[in-house]
Amino acid sequence: MHSVCFTAETSSNGVVERDFIVGEVPGVLWSPASGSDHAPVVLMGHGGGLHKKTPALMARAHDTVTNWGFTVVAIDAPGHGDRPRTTEDELARAEFRQAQAAGDTERFESISVRYVTSLAERAVPEWQATLDALQKLPEIGTEVPIGYGGGISLGTAIGVPLTATEPRITAAIFGGGFFVYEALIEAARRITVPIQFLLPWDDEHVDRQSALALFDAFASKEKTLHANPGDHRTIRWVGVDNEFLARHLGRAGTSPA
Amino acid sequence: MHSVCFTAETSSNGVVERDFIVGEVPGVLWSPASGSDHAPVVLMGHGGGLHKKTPALMARAHDTVTNWGFTVVAIDAPGHGDRPRTTEDELARAEFRQAQAAGDTERFESISVRYVTSLAERAVPEWQATLDALQKLPEIGTEVPIGYGGGISLGTAIGVPLTATEPRITAAIFGGGFFVYEALIEAARRITVPIQFLLPWDDEHVDRQSALALFDAFASKEKTLHANPGDHRTIRWVGVDNEFLARHLGRAGTSPA
Repeated sequence: MHSVCFTAETSSNGVVERDFIVGEVPGVLWSPASGSDHAPVVLMGHGGGLHKKTPALMARAHDTVTNWGFTVVAIDAPGHGDRPRTTEDELARAEFRQAQAAGDTERFESISVRYVTSLAERAVPEWQATLDALQKLPEIGTEVPIGYGGGISLGTAIGVPLTATEPRITAAIFGGGFFVYEALIEAARRITVPIQFLLPWDDEHVDRQSALALFDAFASKEKTLHANPGDHRTIRWVGVDNEFLARHLGRAGTSPA
Repeated sequence: MHSVCFTAETSSNGVVERDFIVGEVPGVLWSPASGSDHAPVVLMGHGGGLHKKTPALMARAHDTVTNWGFTVVAIDAPGHGDRPRTTEDELARAEFRQAQAAGDTERFESISVRYVTSLAERAVPEWQATLDALQKLPEIGTEVPIGYGGGISLGTAIGVPLTATEPRITAAIFGGGFFVYEALIEAARRITVPIQFLLPWDDEHVDRQSALALFDAFASKEKTLHANPGDHRTIRWVGVDNEFLARHLGRAGTSPA
């Protein structure tokens, strides 16, 4: 089993940011400067083509640390951020560009589904190994509540199979903005923990019905669909229940900074 | 133009409840015991077969008065509550019973659409006359912000055409739980004010897609769909943005009791 190897540490506005590596996977841990002993941990996924320190993800991470005293962790998905790209990654990117240039939306969708399926298959065990390693840190430990803090698009395509197979995750935020495929619907049917689902109502490329079918598939007794107008790249979320994770993971023992 | 004729007044937990009549329409006004000078006014509709003092409606009215200092008004829909039933009302009720006993869901839907359309046509001018009369009261006046506080089912079937024709309403809460018909979709297309839409995800009788089509039809730049599992009679709402009306109507000048 891998250990967490910390490589850098900075601090701003009461939030400590620590870069780390587990095995070959680079990640980042945000926690309150005032201490985070056994605080709930939130796993955050980034979108397709992005990385663990994308501004929107960092903003959500800082809010989560500051408002709730939680620890937040993000890792780069395979072939994303600081990670090397395999031949498969390079090929998929080239194919995306070709399909987009040709305006071939059907081909774009089939490439996306194939590539995202592969990313999710690789990312799930990476998240699990990261979690194993983080739980060996004394300030985290094996008893902390763990939630998946989402990210729509790729963050959901990875988060759904992760949550379906990972009993440590007890609440999750997912969303639309990508091509939903049948294996994902099947994984959603095995999920029973509380779900918050964020749906951009007017996605440019993605069929709304498939996102609604994904929400429908969760076996969770408590699930909330929240939709606002807009595409997943430009959406302005209004009236989202920001206390969802705090309600299900509990407050941190330490006060937020 | 009719005046407001108050017929009874009670008070509990800092909320004054005043029964009134405008023309032939009985209504009720809830306001803070501490005063409600020029506070925003929220119009609340009740569900089919119910009335203006249904427990769920009263609970929402009390919350709205207590949390925001707003004035809340509800009136009985035609043929509902304290109002006499016309031959049409009695006939519709008898037909509902027959269709239900026969298990004829198609007929049930067609009776519902015809009757609800008629109720909405009668109720819209009644709401407008009530509003005219209430605005002559010195503590309300013509400058107060006005919102439609919804109620799913019949409350929405009446509220959508009301909001489409009534420029005084500047924010509205609607919802699913009834058979949506084309005239309602057309009215929704004329609505541009901020909308919160509450959708019971698993309605026993009502097609989910028609409620989604109604949400889709609103021309509002700001609209939020919120869905939770359950039928509209039994649903437990979780994570609803309770500040929606307060954000759009502003706070009352006077402090809540």
